[in-house]
Amino acid sequence: MQIEGKNQVFQALEAGTTINKIWVDVNYSKRRDEIIFLARKNKVRVEFVPKVALDKKSTTSHHQGYIADAVDFSYTPLEELISSAGEKPFFVLLDGIEDPHNFGAIIRSCECAGVDGIIIPKNRACAVNDTVVRTSTGAIANMKIAMVTNLKEAISALKDAGVWVYAAEIGGDDIYSQKLDRPIAVVIGSEGNGIKKSIIASCDGVLTLPLKGKINSLNASVACGIVVFEILRQRG
Amino acid sequence: MQIEGKNQVFQALEAGTTINKIWVDVNYSKRRDEIIFLARKNKVRVEFVPKVALDKKSTTSHHQGYIADAVDFSYTPLEELISSAGEKPFFVLLDGIEDPHNFGAIIRSCECAGVDGIIIPKNRACAVNDTVVRTSTGAIANMKIAMVTNLKEAISALKDAGVWVYAAEIGGDDIYSQKLDRPIAVVIGSEGNGIKKSIIASCDGVLTLPLKGKINSLNASVACGIVVFEILRQRG
Repeated sequence: MQIEGKNQVFQALEAGTTINKIWVDVNYSKRRDEIIFLARKNKVRVEFVPKVALDKKSTTSHHQGYIADAVDFSYTPLEELISSAGEKPFFVLLDGIEDPHNFGAIIRSCECAGVDGIIIPKNRACAVNDTVVRTSTGAIANMKIAMVTNLKEAISALKDAGVWVYAAEIGGDDIYSQKLDRPIAVVIGSEGNGIKKSIIASCDGVLTLPLKGKINSLNASVACGIVVFEILRQRG
Repeated sequence: MQIEGKNQVFQALEAGTTINKIWVDVNYSKRRDEIIFLARKNKVRVEFVPKVALDKKSTTSHHQGYIADAVDFSYTPLEELISSAGEKPFFVLLDGIEDPHNFGAIIRSCECAGVDGIIIPKNRACAVNDTVVRTSTGAIANMKIAMVTNLKEAISALKDAGVWVYAAEIGGDDIYSQKLDRPIAVVIGSEGNGIKKSIIASCDGVLTLPLKGKINSLNASVACGIVVFEILRQRG
């Protein structure tokens, strides 16, 4: 889906519409600072091109210096995601996954493990883009994803719905010693920084994989896969 | 490490030396067909450049139209890899992983799970290159890797050493119902094709992850992570 025009592109960015790329007139365009700032914040690629390139790409001839290539994907509202899960809900929250390949692999793993939905934050995280869709190898079509402004509020909403929320992080309880056969949500941290302390503090517990090596650094999507399959194993 | 000269580059390719890239004189060079064929077979990138570019890059001034950028990594001979493991060995065999990011992530997971060594085939598979080293985030320094001509012979050698060899593949026994707390090696299949039938036939059993989705396609490195951690869990 192609979005054209300064206000249209700005609004799409603000609404969290998933955008693969924005082409911007290299020479001049209004609302430039706002739009570039929002694009950077949402990790959207920006390419500066001559006006003639935009004229050629435009289907409306009202691009006003901005054309965005948006993904045709609909997020699920958080309330709907929570209420549509089965009797024993199973959710995954991602605290700032930035690599679209990791995000796509996580969607695959969650689909395989019977996860009911994935919750991602709006800012400083990878949204659903073309790379994510491709890397998910079709799994995204069977996965509800909610994009929320505040991950802590989402955790509160999950707790209110009777869901136990765990952080998957080092320094917690051995995951294999925990009873995970219950309504559950698990938070996976970002590639570089793990889970934010304030998020960990709002969880019911911390699940830790016992590691036997010297380096002991798992890829984020691998860690997520191991954790969701341990939950699946306990659910039997 | 830089390798220069037609025979030197050819021999390095034939010996399975890990090469990131080969630069070839675009206009003329001897043994061209042989070297390009071997490079393609070993999935080594080839770039054709003008002779002046090779002259500039050369440190020996005897490049003869070929310069290779090789990785400073030593494979472990299979016998040494097998004999150096502990009382209850734990190995992973990769049947044709082609993506260096997957290979790197697998090395990370194996290091975390206390795997004693990884065995890869020489042909039609990703060797250790710079991307693998980088993606392994340091784990490769603590992991023995053997490169073998024939994966089935390696499986025979493992069996002779008292190791149980399992294929991780669909259509086998539920992994959670199997006793895996024993000297063990697990074969992981390639991204597109899984494990070759002849390899599966030479294994002691097939381990299958129970999947709950509709698409049910796990990323190869994620599948490996889940399987090695299930083995680690059973080892306690």
